[in-house]
Amino acid sequence: MARHRVDDIAAALGVRWEGDGGIELARAAAPADATEDALAVAMDPAYAEALGRGAARAAILWDGADWRALGLEAAIFVTRPRYAMAQLTDRFAPRPDLAAGIHPSAVIDPSARIGNDVAIAPFVVVGEGAVIGDGARIMSHTSIAAGTEIGAGALLHPGVRIGPRVRIGARFIAQPNAVIAADGFSFVTPEPGAIEQVRATLGAEVTQRQSSYARIHSLGRVVIGDDVEIGAGSCIDQATLAETVIGDGTKIDNLVQIGHNVQIGRDCLICGQSGIAGSTRLGDRVVLGGQSGVTDHVEIGDDVIAGGGTLFRTSQPAGRVMLGDPAMSMQQSIETYKALRRLPRFMRQMAEFKKSVSKTGDTD
Amino acid sequence: MARHRVDDIAAALGVRWEGDGGIELARAAAPADATEDALAVAMDPAYAEALGRGAARAAILWDGADWRALGLEAAIFVTRPRYAMAQLTDRFAPRPDLAAGIHPSAVIDPSARIGNDVAIAPFVVVGEGAVIGDGARIMSHTSIAAGTEIGAGALLHPGVRIGPRVRIGARFIAQPNAVIAADGFSFVTPEPGAIEQVRATLGAEVTQRQSSYARIHSLGRVVIGDDVEIGAGSCIDQATLAETVIGDGTKIDNLVQIGHNVQIGRDCLICGQSGIAGSTRLGDRVVLGGQSGVTDHVEIGDDVIAGGGTLFRTSQPAGRVMLGDPAMSMQQSIETYKALRRLPRFMRQMAEFKKSVSKTGDTD
Amino acid sequence: MARHRVDDIAAALGVRWEGDGGIELARAAAPADATEDALAVAMDPAYAEALGRGAARAAILWDGADWRALGLEAAIFVTRPRYAMAQLTDRFAPRPDLAAGIHPSAVIDPSARIGNDVAIAPFVVVGEGAVIGDGARIMSHTSIAAGTEIGAGALLHPGVRIGPRVRIGARFIAQPNAVIAADGFSFVTPEPGAIEQVRATLGAEVTQRQSSYARIHSLGRVVIGDDVEIGAGSCIDQATLAETVIGDGTKIDNLVQIGHNVQIGRDCLICGQSGIAGSTRLGDRVVLGGQSGVTDHVEIGDDVIAGGGTLFRTSQPAGRVMLGDPAMSMQQSIETYKALRRLPRFMRQMAEFKKSVSKTGDTD
Repeated sequence: MARHRVDDIAAALGVRWEGDGGIELARAAAPADATEDALAVAMDPAYAEALGRGAARAAILWDGADWRALGLEAAIFVTRPRYAMAQLTDRFAPRPDLAAGIHPSAVIDPSARIGNDVAIAPFVVVGEGAVIGDGARIMSHTSIAAGTEIGAGALLHPGVRIGPRVRIGARFIAQPNAVIAADGFSFVTPEPGAIEQVRATLGAEVTQRQSSYARIHSLGRVVIGDDVEIGAGSCIDQATLAETVIGDGTKIDNLVQIGHNVQIGRDCLICGQSGIAGSTRLGDRVVLGGQSGVTDHVEIGDDVIAGGGTLFRTSQPAGRVMLGDPAMSMQQSIETYKALRRLPRFMRQMAEFKKSVSKTGDTD
Repeated sequence: MARHRVDDIAAALGVRWEGDGGIELARAAAPADATEDALAVAMDPAYAEALGRGAARAAILWDGADWRALGLEAAIFVTRPRYAMAQLTDRFAPRPDLAAGIHPSAVIDPSARIGNDVAIAPFVVVGEGAVIGDGARIMSHTSIAAGTEIGAGALLHPGVRIGPRVRIGARFIAQPNAVIAADGFSFVTPEPGAIEQVRATLGAEVTQRQSSYARIHSLGRVVIGDDVEIGAGSCIDQATLAETVIGDGTKIDNLVQIGHNVQIGRDCLICGQSGIAGSTRLGDRVVLGGQSGVTDHVEIGDDVIAGGGTLFRTSQPAGRVMLGDPAMSMQQSIETYKALRRLPRFMRQMAEFKKSVSKTGDTD
Repeated sequence: MARHRVDDIAAALGVRWEGDGGIELARAAAPADATEDALAVAMDPAYAEALGRGAARAAILWDGADWRALGLEAAIFVTRPRYAMAQLTDRFAPRPDLAAGIHPSAVIDPSARIGNDVAIAPFVVVGEGAVIGDGARIMSHTSIAAGTEIGAGALLHPGVRIGPRVRIGARFIAQPNAVIAADGFSFVTPEPGAIEQVRATLGAEVTQRQSSYARIHSLGRVVIGDDVEIGAGSCIDQATLAETVIGDGTKIDNLVQIGHNVQIGRDCLICGQSGIAGSTRLGDRVVLGGQSGVTDHVEIGDDVIAGGGTLFRTSQPAGRVMLGDPAMSMQQSIETYKALRRLPRFMRQMAEFKKSVSKTGDTD
């Protein structure tokens, strides 16, 4: 395991350090778990006590901390802790458990083009005409279907499924068992059915009965930009004719469902178990909290931010902060939740009030 | 890639065509992406402009479109576009990337019976006594456990898990990483516990504490009809003693959870991330929008249609169109959502009104 | 298949039996499906009629049932049916379809330590320094990464993904395609972004725009106690620096998401499609119904029980029974739901009342 000097780490982070800059560190650790060769991460005074329970000689601390009083021999000081964490954990991140080269058990179609310095683990399958960029690490049990192209520097964790004709940019990360380009969920009845009637009448009249379904096949593809990450078990469906699109820099958490023909902009964050139904478009920098949902065929504008469990049942203009079902502005939603909690008591009070007024009236 | 003539396509769809019926087409495409050998799909006037950006010579158009003015050499006209899409995409659907025969890496138990014209991809495992019908295509990394029977024409995408003793009808489709026949989530404490008390008293009294759980094992099986499709990452649990049932023609989207002992009727549509808890029954032609939920041990009648995010906390008679949490009729739910949005203001207005009336009273 | 005598089964369950105790049974079955060699399970009078449709000679019945009148030759009587089911199904549970020993296709790092009596199926990958306890059964297509330790008696179903540095106790069960130790969903922008502003101002002011994200890597690990079960497709993320913890005896259903740094106590039940966001802590014996959610960085006390679809947006003291979004006491939630259903009518009535009072006032 590579070791890093205190002064080198501070220089890389562009921050200040004090004490013995020559201490060499093998890893980063929580304050109480830190061994002598670990950099304790205690960027908030709340962790001061935990430092005493660990054995760290050096720590990364909040600005202004008294490192000598904390029993340390060296300290690095940060002003923006979360961003420092990104840089620090990148430096100490263990590399995936994967030897260079192509494992003999992998089944690679002879027409596939595999870049330089690619590592392919056991039991990987790569289909006809697939293209894998330089430096990719394809972990075990992953399948990459015919005609798919993956950019340089990809990291595919075990069990990832990538369907046919997918285009993926550089530095793609897929967590275990993610599924890219399953067929879209698109079925139709020979005659107009009950669902179409419900949509047309908002449920007011339903005389049709659904009959058997015919599949609308997915002939399109999934197109994924640069620097995208897809979480464990998440699913992104293939487009019917055109493209399901995930923009540059967008990060998708675990167990998220992205329907067919969906278009997601740049630098979005889609948290765990959220779902986006077919043909919906999200702008750039949209954030969906966990277990959020967006109905089909709507548009969510740039910079919309939604708290956990928000359900968008209609389109949403840009820049709003939303919460609840149906989605309201976060301010309105919090006010509405408060009103809802008071509602049973309010109804009783109003009923009493009405009764008292009516009685007053009766005595007139 | 097979090519199809314009006149042949129109004949197969049973619809009208005009222009050069002999143009041969290799694929269907969105209007703007269409190359010269593609049939542009533009079944709504909204796509007229996009046609100009593509290079299509032939298109499938809305009824009455002026194909010559759109710069085309041939046109096919449809009256029910979505159903035409099913027929059209079926014709042009690329076949899965899978050679005929059994890949030498597959591990097939000698007692398994494999039908005619079956294709089995690398790293497939088929257990003792399993039966796979004619024409099945079993893609890579799929596992089929002992005693499972799968009908003719199945298409199992990569990474599908099928547990023991499952019975599946004809033309089954499982999207990547779907899980059929995991063990049901069924546990019990040696003495009656808190959950049982909550159910009995609706939470009014909870004196019990849960203790450690013993597993109730799943000895039953999953029974799936003909023409069923299961989405990517979806899970269908094994029954305790009897059967978890998915009826003929039912389609299940991605990341759906179907609990143990659930029975689902024919021609249902269960959209993404919905969940149906243990021992619940759904009738025929039920539609659940995305992220819907149905509690355990209830019955949802035939032809019930639920919008996205609907939670059924009780049984539901047949034929209703439902929405919300808890599920209400769609009409009532829309009215209730509107009332909810107005609630904080309404409460303030009523408080003022009450105050004004009381003041009036005071001055009497 | 092993056979069990009626009297032996009753003795093992510690309950009473009558009739021919020597009847030998090969399996347990639902009453209507029971063959002559099956023990029909009919622990409620509701199943009496179904018994007549099956061919069982022996059944496990509700206390006081007249077994002769039901056409049986022997009967076992229970007083706590669900617990009897656990014991009974354990006795008759079929063992997984897995030969002893290590399949020649498995790729086991030479430095891995494999216990005694371990069965490893085809296409399993075990990484550097991994440790697998005695009696483990590792089913096909499973991957176990470097440095992970799994206790004795584990059962890993097909397609399970276990990442690096995980510690798992004894008798662990993972259903198919479960994912342990994917990277946490943790990203940060170089400058403070819109999300941080939303949290600080509850959405009142958002002037920042999100910029590109840097990953905070997961250097910590997942620690799982004894007797834990993880459902099909469920995901448990790795901690940033310290540990994501699942306590002894906790059972997790299918498609559940457990975020990074989450700590779950002992003997919890987390039902299907629930999600727990990062750094949240659950006490002991917590029960979350299906599709529940808990926001990040909160604490849910011991013995909290939540109905399906409950969303915890704040911390929750111990011992409460909760329901709804936002979570309220189950009593209050039921009352609020009732009020909500009446709300549109109530608003109309109050508007009329106000109008009538105002008119009265006008005539003064």
